Amino acid sequence: MATRRGVAILGSTGSIGTTALRVLDRQRERFRVAALTAFSNASLLAEQAALHAPSYVGLVHDELEREGWGSGSGTLVEAATREDVDIVLNAVVGAAGLDATLAALECGKRVALANKETLVMGGELVTTACARGGGEIVPVDSEHSAILQCITGKGSAEVRRVVLTASGGPFRTWSAERLERATVADALQHPTWRMGRKITVDSATLANKALEVIEAHYLFGLPYDRIEVVVHPQSVVHSFVEFVDGSVLAQLGVPSMELPVLYALTHPERLPDTGVPPFDPVEMSPLTFERVHDELFPALRLGIRAGREGGTAPAVFNAANEEAVALFLDGRIRFGDIARAIASALDELPQRSASTREALREADEQARKFVRERFRC
Amino acid sequence: MATRRGVAILGSTGSIGTTALRVLDRQRERFRVAALTAFSNASLLAEQAALHAPSYVGLVHDELEREGWGSGSGTLVEAATREDVDIVLNAVVGAAGLDATLAALECGKRVALANKETLVMGGELVTTACARGGGEIVPVDSEHSAILQCITGKGSAEVRRVVLTASGGPFRTWSAERLERATVADALQHPTWRMGRKITVDSATLANKALEVIEAHYLFGLPYDRIEVVVHPQSVVHSFVEFVDGSVLAQLGVPSMELPVLYALTHPERLPDTGVPPFDPVEMSPLTFERVHDELFPALRLGIRAGREGGTAPAVFNAANEEAVALFLDGRIRFGDIARAIASALDELPQRSASTREALREADEQARKFVRERFRC
Repeated sequence: MATRRGVAILGSTGSIGTTALRVLDRQRERFRVAALTAFSNASLLAEQAALHAPSYVGLVHDELEREGWGSGSGTLVEAATREDVDIVLNAVVGAAGLDATLAALECGKRVALANKETLVMGGELVTTACARGGGEIVPVDSEHSAILQCITGKGSAEVRRVVLTASGGPFRTWSAERLERATVADALQHPTWRMGRKITVDSATLANKALEVIEAHYLFGLPYDRIEVVVHPQSVVHSFVEFVDGSVLAQLGVPSMELPVLYALTHPERLPDTGVPPFDPVEMSPLTFERVHDELFPALRLGIRAGREGGTAPAVFNAANEEAVALFLDGRIRFGDIARAIASALDELPQRSASTREALREADEQARKFVRERFRC
Repeated sequence: MATRRGVAILGSTGSIGTTALRVLDRQRERFRVAALTAFSNASLLAEQAALHAPSYVGLVHDELEREGWGSGSGTLVEAATREDVDIVLNAVVGAAGLDATLAALECGKRVALANKETLVMGGELVTTACARGGGEIVPVDSEHSAILQCITGKGSAEVRRVVLTASGGPFRTWSAERLERATVADALQHPTWRMGRKITVDSATLANKALEVIEAHYLFGLPYDRIEVVVHPQSVVHSFVEFVDGSVLAQLGVPSMELPVLYALTHPERLPDTGVPPFDPVEMSPLTFERVHDELFPALRLGIRAGREGGTAPAVFNAANEEAVALFLDGRIRFGDIARAIASALDELPQRSASTREALREADEQARKFVRERFRC
């Protein structure tokens, strides 16, 4: 039997983390759970640790410290850089995931990346860390996994364009007036995917799709004018790749994160697995596609604009969005304010080079402070 | 500049042949037209020869002999085995294409195969010829090209299942009673593809899809229970491949043979080309999928049954179908008689081993004679 590869899961009690543990449970012959970290859900983490017996367990929230567990924000980097870890599944929510991604890449590990903020904020740093440490990033997002699956085994010069699909979220068919007053409960009703709260709101504003466009730019080395977005309400086609000869490949399946998580572990190979129900195009019919309604979802164009500007602009976009979403979830700003907060932050905050961790941290903090002060009621 | 690869086009005046010449015209830097053959359209062949200056021109129809041209049925093998030919595009209609395919493979050439009857009749012989001569077959059918594009760069053990799409032809929504009396003009109204008359009728009976299932069996080494068919009226998704982890890839595009022809020349690489208009999923929306109506289209199951039986059964299926389609196009039998002719031939004719060219020729002739005698009015 081949040596089993050690997997660290950062954010093991979240949506992606629990999915990953189900996948790893089926794939015990090839992988073992080497490390688990969570933010604050100590009881679920303890259950997971008892079941999977990792050699390291870490809890970010200090006050809940347990014997034998690592604790504090340093646990992420600690788990990500351990010697018995080959693959780091980074499923931390938001900007907090960046240091662990950088540290794992510097150690030459594979990072299975569900924490897209990592690449959005620190695209340049991450690219440098990959080159220096010999690590690699494999996406866990269903859209980027789809693209990777379509281009695996093909020359990268053969890719002409990618088209990311977006479900369009719960507000796809709403009027601008109604959308302005959308409630938290409305925004959390995602039509096709079950995910955490922050990413569900990001899917309702399409800020999530902007993050994915920036992520695709760094993952696949594509300029922004070769990355497009189309609305596909059924979430069955996870993305398209158009090649230089005009041919188009797509990856499809019922909306489920089991496959992207598994593929991030096994890429470029595939392992037999039963996590995804058999494909039946008749049951999924019809598949429809629509253009994005830019006026209704300004966050998408704001994010792509930030991506094109480069420097700290994507970090400002990301931080302003995170802060605004938190205020929205707290009931302190309206749905429409999320995009307004992002636009103001991008317009008013200074843009800098993003080549150091400090510059990013500063841009991140500045944007958060700006949004809190300007938009908190 | 790399040496340009020499291409022989067998059947250059037909639908695939003329498409191929348009493709080659755009790709002159990488390919040159080395040989052209046609059945009887001497004037178009002369035009093509004047334009592309091949070193060999052949006309199958003896009585139209021209100076400097090869003539007779031997021209196909002659063109296919010439030393300045690297790739043989076999776009001959029907069983007549088999010898040229076998000869080209024995000489170690690539056969870009639009003549699916070749593989259906002579699957075993073709496989042997490939192994012995070091040649390779690359499909030109849009469905098989789609599958090849999806699996290129992946391990063949990773394929769980393929799903061929079928437009469903012009009779998809007809009643059984009405279908029985369908005219030649009705059958030639294909909803999405412009093709020759024989293949258009085959698309109306779904006999064409049966031929493609058998072709897929030999091309990709898949057992019949891992090859399925789904109706997809828009002909935008050209086929699906399901992998062992449950992931599905598809190849898509507007219905056009330009891409499959080009890809058969360039596989496993791709060349920049403008033959296919840019992909726009919104314009192609919605994409729908339906189950095949087996009672309405018995030829599909008959063909798959023949494939499973093996031996000379696929050759009998193919010959009985060719003969019945010719009688239908001549107005001598009804549309419903085509499947009845195939069923009788498969039921009543003896099945033999298909390991020699003679056994195939005999099965082919016997099936044609059987259909002519039994079904001609």
